[in-house]
Amino acid sequence: MTKQIAILGASGYTGAELVRLIATHPGMEIAALGANSKAGQSMAQVFPHLRHLTLPDLVKIDEIDFSGIDLCFCALPHKTSQEVISALPKDLKIVDLSADFRLRDPEDYEKWYGNPHSAVEMQKEAVYGLTEFYRDEIREARLVAGTGCNAATGQYILRPLIAAGVIGLEDIILDLKCGVSGAGRSLKENLLHAELSEGYHAYAVGSTHRHLGEFDQEFSKIAERDVRIQFTPHLIPANRGILATGYVSGEAEAIHAALSAAYDAEPFIEVLPMGEVPSTRHVRGSNFCHIGVVADRIDGRAIVVAALDNLTKGSSGQALQNANLMLHIQETEGLMLAPVFP
Amino acid sequence: MTKQIAILGASGYTGAELVRLIATHPGMEIAALGANSKAGQSMAQVFPHLRHLTLPDLVKIDEIDFSGIDLCFCALPHKTSQEVISALPKDLKIVDLSADFRLRDPEDYEKWYGNPHSAVEMQKEAVYGLTEFYRDEIREARLVAGTGCNAATGQYILRPLIAAGVIGLEDIILDLKCGVSGAGRSLKENLLHAELSEGYHAYAVGSTHRHLGEFDQEFSKIAERDVRIQFTPHLIPANRGILATGYVSGEAEAIHAALSAAYDAEPFIEVLPMGEVPSTRHVRGSNFCHIGVVADRIDGRAIVVAALDNLTKGSSGQALQNANLMLHIQETEGLMLAPVFP
Amino acid sequence: MTKQIAILGASGYTGAELVRLIATHPGMEIAALGANSKAGQSMAQVFPHLRHLTLPDLVKIDEIDFSGIDLCFCALPHKTSQEVISALPKDLKIVDLSADFRLRDPEDYEKWYGNPHSAVEMQKEAVYGLTEFYRDEIREARLVAGTGCNAATGQYILRPLIAAGVIGLEDIILDLKCGVSGAGRSLKENLLHAELSEGYHAYAVGSTHRHLGEFDQEFSKIAERDVRIQFTPHLIPANRGILATGYVSGEAEAIHAALSAAYDAEPFIEVLPMGEVPSTRHVRGSNFCHIGVVADRIDGRAIVVAALDNLTKGSSGQALQNANLMLHIQETEGLMLAPVFP
Amino acid sequence: MTKQIAILGASGYTGAELVRLIATHPGMEIAALGANSKAGQSMAQVFPHLRHLTLPDLVKIDEIDFSGIDLCFCALPHKTSQEVISALPKDLKIVDLSADFRLRDPEDYEKWYGNPHSAVEMQKEAVYGLTEFYRDEIREARLVAGTGCNAATGQYILRPLIAAGVIGLEDIILDLKCGVSGAGRSLKENLLHAELSEGYHAYAVGSTHRHLGEFDQEFSKIAERDVRIQFTPHLIPANRGILATGYVSGEAEAIHAALSAAYDAEPFIEVLPMGEVPSTRHVRGSNFCHIGVVADRIDGRAIVVAALDNLTKGSSGQALQNANLMLHIQETEGLMLAPVFP
Repeated sequence: MTKQIAILGASGYTGAELVRLIATHPGMEIAALGANSKAGQSMAQVFPHLRHLTLPDLVKIDEIDFSGIDLCFCALPHKTSQEVISALPKDLKIVDLSADFRLRDPEDYEKWYGNPHSAVEMQKEAVYGLTEFYRDEIREARLVAGTGCNAATGQYILRPLIAAGVIGLEDIILDLKCGVSGAGRSLKENLLHAELSEGYHAYAVGSTHRHLGEFDQEFSKIAERDVRIQFTPHLIPANRGILATGYVSGEAEAIHAALSAAYDAEPFIEVLPMGEVPSTRHVRGSNFCHIGVVADRIDGRAIVVAALDNLTKGSSGQALQNANLMLHIQETEGLMLAPVFP
Repeated sequence: MTKQIAILGASGYTGAELVRLIATHPGMEIAALGANSKAGQSMAQVFPHLRHLTLPDLVKIDEIDFSGIDLCFCALPHKTSQEVISALPKDLKIVDLSADFRLRDPEDYEKWYGNPHSAVEMQKEAVYGLTEFYRDEIREARLVAGTGCNAATGQYILRPLIAAGVIGLEDIILDLKCGVSGAGRSLKENLLHAELSEGYHAYAVGSTHRHLGEFDQEFSKIAERDVRIQFTPHLIPANRGILATGYVSGEAEAIHAALSAAYDAEPFIEVLPMGEVPSTRHVRGSNFCHIGVVADRIDGRAIVVAALDNLTKGSSGQALQNANLMLHIQETEGLMLAPVFP
Repeated sequence: MTKQIAILGASGYTGAELVRLIATHPGMEIAALGANSKAGQSMAQVFPHLRHLTLPDLVKIDEIDFSGIDLCFCALPHKTSQEVISALPKDLKIVDLSADFRLRDPEDYEKWYGNPHSAVEMQKEAVYGLTEFYRDEIREARLVAGTGCNAATGQYILRPLIAAGVIGLEDIILDLKCGVSGAGRSLKENLLHAELSEGYHAYAVGSTHRHLGEFDQEFSKIAERDVRIQFTPHLIPANRGILATGYVSGEAEAIHAALSAAYDAEPFIEVLPMGEVPSTRHVRGSNFCHIGVVADRIDGRAIVVAALDNLTKGSSGQALQNANLMLHIQETEGLMLAPVFP
Repeated sequence: MTKQIAILGASGYTGAELVRLIATHPGMEIAALGANSKAGQSMAQVFPHLRHLTLPDLVKIDEIDFSGIDLCFCALPHKTSQEVISALPKDLKIVDLSADFRLRDPEDYEKWYGNPHSAVEMQKEAVYGLTEFYRDEIREARLVAGTGCNAATGQYILRPLIAAGVIGLEDIILDLKCGVSGAGRSLKENLLHAELSEGYHAYAVGSTHRHLGEFDQEFSKIAERDVRIQFTPHLIPANRGILATGYVSGEAEAIHAALSAAYDAEPFIEVLPMGEVPSTRHVRGSNFCHIGVVADRIDGRAIVVAALDNLTKGSSGQALQNANLMLHIQETEGLMLAPVFP
């Protein structure tokens, strides 16, 4: 039986990506599209690339009748998200793509996002949406918090290594390069083509990026002690793609073995043969994540590189993967699209 | 019953695009991948973005056993293609993506391609693969000749207009902008990123591009008189996409009506509302073609703009659409993927 | 003696380009930089690429003391420009880069720009700034109106051909491709990297672009009759560069001869050998314009292609060239920088 | 008196960049352009962006008369360079842009480049061309070895810090992002626009890049002990630009102070205010290098980021700066061009 789906925040990139993926999903049907600022428009007006689809028009969120909805994706900005979700029916299954329910501790949330959380109870209820590591909880969850796209990439590298105890915890450095769609459809000078094309730069330098809240929470939990990594993201003149280069102390062979063991049965995580490294162009538009390991010339040091598409595996693809689990659909349904290259 | 598919020339971009599309096609299975220069390698070595798929290794073409193959895609360079296809089993269904069987007249072929055709009988047998206009013949064909990607785009604009008699035939100008993947994976200085990025230029200026052979053949046939258009392609710093701007004499309303009528029932051709024009970013990675019509400020002149993805609708997607027809599969099977934006 | 220069609108791309060019100009010194919205900031804050220069801080325009200023560049938006210039000292030499003084007829201005002109007298006084064709008037002018960048490119192709009578006037088509910096530093969705990169499209289709006002005015004046061309600009995923493809009726040899004769002594206009066409990547960052001519396969039809950098020759470089003339400095001073390739 | 200049290897990107820079240099004149593979062609044929210049045609290197040449730039591939330079007049001043004379120890050379050095005596004579640190030796040198472009960027970050003793030497990590022109005009699949655009990846992972030979040599010399850093370069979809992100242990304030002191009087190195980081788009096409320092959230850790243009400050601009010194011309002559942005 086809599941009825609502998407709130459908006029942003992650909303559009959800529609793209669900369009060929045999078990889901889009029943409502909410977007307050563009309510009244058709999806084809906002996103002409979706004009071949028969879709409901965009409406204001409070005009949506959720009674027949099986699951709701929430692709709204953080802070707005917690307010909107608080007002939704309490038995509605929700996958939230914002930052609002990623951190379990209200103080952590306020520290990284600058405002007190207004839905603390739901914050506690939410399950962290990194599918490969929270699969059982997600299957039973009512509210799943999609991870940050940078946070997902870094965790795909580091979680198995911390869990297996094959790397040192004091000197982990993550140097990340991400395409511009990760910044969303917001109108900022540094996202203009003329500014970004042919230019690249670091931002949130000094380990001040908000996704560190997720790293701290998750890595400390796995290690059962405080873990603080260094993390520098860079904006790259490309649309989609995150490439994370991890510098760790540890034996490359043990690291490769830990990653291979962790992801052996995973449908979307590909560990490359020892010594090979991935490229963002080989995952674009797909839900796959490629990971490679290389030993450094310095004994006991290794480099681990991961690539994924920030809008798919890093956000909307992950969300759909989680929704499949929550709706007891085959986990990979709608997600086996091959990357688009070139 | 799943159809067994062979792809010859699997190490080029159109070969890879075929694999990408067939990967989620429920009625086809890739049984053989031929690529003489890279025989012995796995597809994942040549195209790491396909590494999640279980695929046969690349082999030399003459090592393939065609006895169980239901249909063979031939994505080889022109001239090579006619030689290889001549040697294939005579009852094998073939979709050729090269230029070798597009022109019906051996003299035309020699004029545009510079060498005599070595398989003239097959040239006569081949059906021209512009699906929307040769659907019935394709359904019955053994050998279908995929169109040029530029040629397809121009014909989507002009065929209905010539057929409906709503434009003048003496002053048709087609100014075309195409992404670099149309040039294939060949190693040429002007295809280097450092040369092409931030640069654009016209090529084959003076209406000397080979796809004019297709325009001349097809437009003259429809008009039942000689039609010669002007055509200038331009290379644009992007990977995928063809944008064709057609300048014609005629009434915009009649032109829009003729296009709407021609494509009303077509699953992949979208005629935009009068006055709107398409963008390549809204068709990328998909089998869709968007067409728009605008009246010029000069009475009796109109501009018609079409956008499609050269590798999909312009080549491999078209080929799969034709293969579906030849194998009596639903025509749209495997091809309803939404465009990838952004 | 070094000339004292003011730049109004210094926080936009054309303002920054003026600073870049004047930075190595031996006869000019930047004495004031006006930018109301960013007043109080240093130029290095607004444009870090200029941080090696010793420059005055940005100030509000009405705070500038113009008494010691020899020439003022006005790089403000249209409409604002006429208001600001009206209030400047009446003996101040001004090069305006906006659209406000390009059209001589107040009705034409209102037709294309939608508002009545508020400085009609100055509109009459202004000299049209296409240096190669108004050199003598510019030398004596107080107020020079820089041309539109698209308008300059089209005129470099067509003026000599209309003047020499070597092309028909009824069927001129100009298909233009321009980089995104021509749209300025404005925050619009379609100028975002994620939207534009890998996408290209036509805009102002139907010959509705405002630069047609300049074409109409200038071509009609040369031809001594009404001339109306068709003109379609396209936005290309690149930062700098305009490529204009002109379709004309006439003999290619005569066309090439007319262009060669017109530009033979020009320091910045290069007519390529017959049959060669230019690329934007070969003029980027420079004041040069390359023009090529090719005969079409249809007798009596030719294609003329021109390339220039919209920010330099199309705008700020042209402005500096005119300023040199107005200040009786060598015309090429500060402008012989070679293009930046790759 | 104008110095007569020869450029060997003039058909590559660094050769063209030298011509671009020398074109407006008042004290130099290009007397000979050598390029064996394209001998007989004009520079305008090989590099149309230089067609406005009056330049000698390309000739075979052994046809050049060096008797009137004051200085010769050698922009040839490594290994070829040492052979060609060995055969040049022994009193000719030479700036070599290849890797052949960067390493002082013949064993180091063989280790990193795989072949024994064939001009060991000249290897000893050569002065390492990092201007800011070898200025006095360069002024007196006959043969100067231009540094690697990655090597220059890394040294601009690390030399002053090692010299001042403000960072630890055991855990230095350099994560570098470079544009594609650094790979030269060679025809390789991964340099094609269709492959690189929208894709980025690490290469020479595991600290195996040849420029590590330079780091090892120089850093060990400064520290008077063995220093081995970790270094991972990444290929970015842009043409020009190197962004190096250095991870070091040390106090950010001390680091910023050491860099500021080292570069205070340098005309081309700009140390940004504490906490700011550079972007490649702000140095493109120029000889400037911007450096920024940020403290990490982890006490005692800092991030230092440097940006420069690989073809200018990283190669040809550096070469010209050194040539100015060798010819007793003002060091900044011809090099004060402002960056081209956007």
